[in-house]
Amino acid sequence: MNATQVLDHRQRTREMLNAAGIALTEDEIARIEVADMGLGRLAHEGLQLITYINTDRYCAKELVILPEQTCPEHRHPSIGSEPGKQETFRCRWGEVWLYVEGPPAEKIRAKIPRESKVHYTVFHEIVLSPGEQYTIPPNTLHWFQAGPEGAVVSEFSSCSRDEYDIFTDPGVRRQPVISE
Amino acid sequence: MNATQVLDHRQRTREMLNAAGIALTEDEIARIEVADMGLGRLAHEGLQLITYINTDRYCAKELVILPEQTCPEHRHPSIGSEPGKQETFRCRWGEVWLYVEGPPAEKIRAKIPRESKVHYTVFHEIVLSPGEQYTIPPNTLHWFQAGPEGAVVSEFSSCSRDEYDIFTDPGVRRQPVISE
Repeated sequence: MNATQVLDHRQRTREMLNAAGIALTEDEIARIEVADMGLGRLAHEGLQLITYINTDRYCAKELVILPEQTCPEHRHPSIGSEPGKQETFRCRWGEVWLYVEGPPAEKIRAKIPRESKVHYTVFHEIVLSPGEQYTIPPNTLHWFQAGPEGAVVSEFSSCSRDEYDIFTDPGVRRQPVISE
Repeated sequence: MNATQVLDHRQRTREMLNAAGIALTEDEIARIEVADMGLGRLAHEGLQLITYINTDRYCAKELVILPEQTCPEHRHPSIGSEPGKQETFRCRWGEVWLYVEGPPAEKIRAKIPRESKVHYTVFHEIVLSPGEQYTIPPNTLHWFQAGPEGAVVSEFSSCSRDEYDIFTDPGVRRQPVISE
């Protein structure tokens, strides 16, 4: 991921947040996280996010998923005696297709990224439109993709420790890339 | 508080959320909480809220404060070995004036409700416009008032247990009133 890509994705993130009527401070705009998960194919896999607050008790983020962009399958394991991260996804704008463990949909709406098809294994489909939300229990495999217009999703959760996330694709490197 | 007041305040809450571009489901609309704090003067003291999620680990709510409406001063004490609720207020729309413990402002923006003036004791002023946020530590006295257009505020926090809140005004009864 090069500097031009980061700047381009930050700009598109701002435009989508504007469309959703969500305001950020200048400081927040400067630290919009563009995460390509180390896969180098941001148009298909990755997402953009702003962490509003992350304490040892709770966390809140705004996720911005570009049209047809996919956040790769992963789970949040327990860390010592602390249960894994539990998170509530609330769709604010656009549409997001969320896949979790459970009875698979007969035909899913998402297009599974071609390059990493084998690393998507759960297909219980939840469709979230603005105002709809879903809570993912700790340590549950999940992945999600935005619909054709993209999506803005508020994430409310227990403490976030991204570095402990376990991705199905062993090629994923979950490191925030925010430098330009 | 009578049924007409509840319906009227729910309607105004919906209008303000619409203006802020915040979508609710029909089920959420039906359970918008109109809280008059048992004081019987909702135009001056009280607020409207929707709880999106409240688990033993985290909580997220949308607070809607009508123009010049005030949430009375209170704090969230520890409960057993658990520290009191910590909360982050993020202004989404309008303007909110938040008062917490600390050096008092020389002249505060808020109009202290006349009927209960003596029950407002902290005057360190924080002004929040859309995109701005502030985190209130556990067990810290705070109160807030919306500016002339009202305010919509996202509240991210640890677990919410309203029934343990300690209000400065001994007349406050913090019971959700959602019946019609």
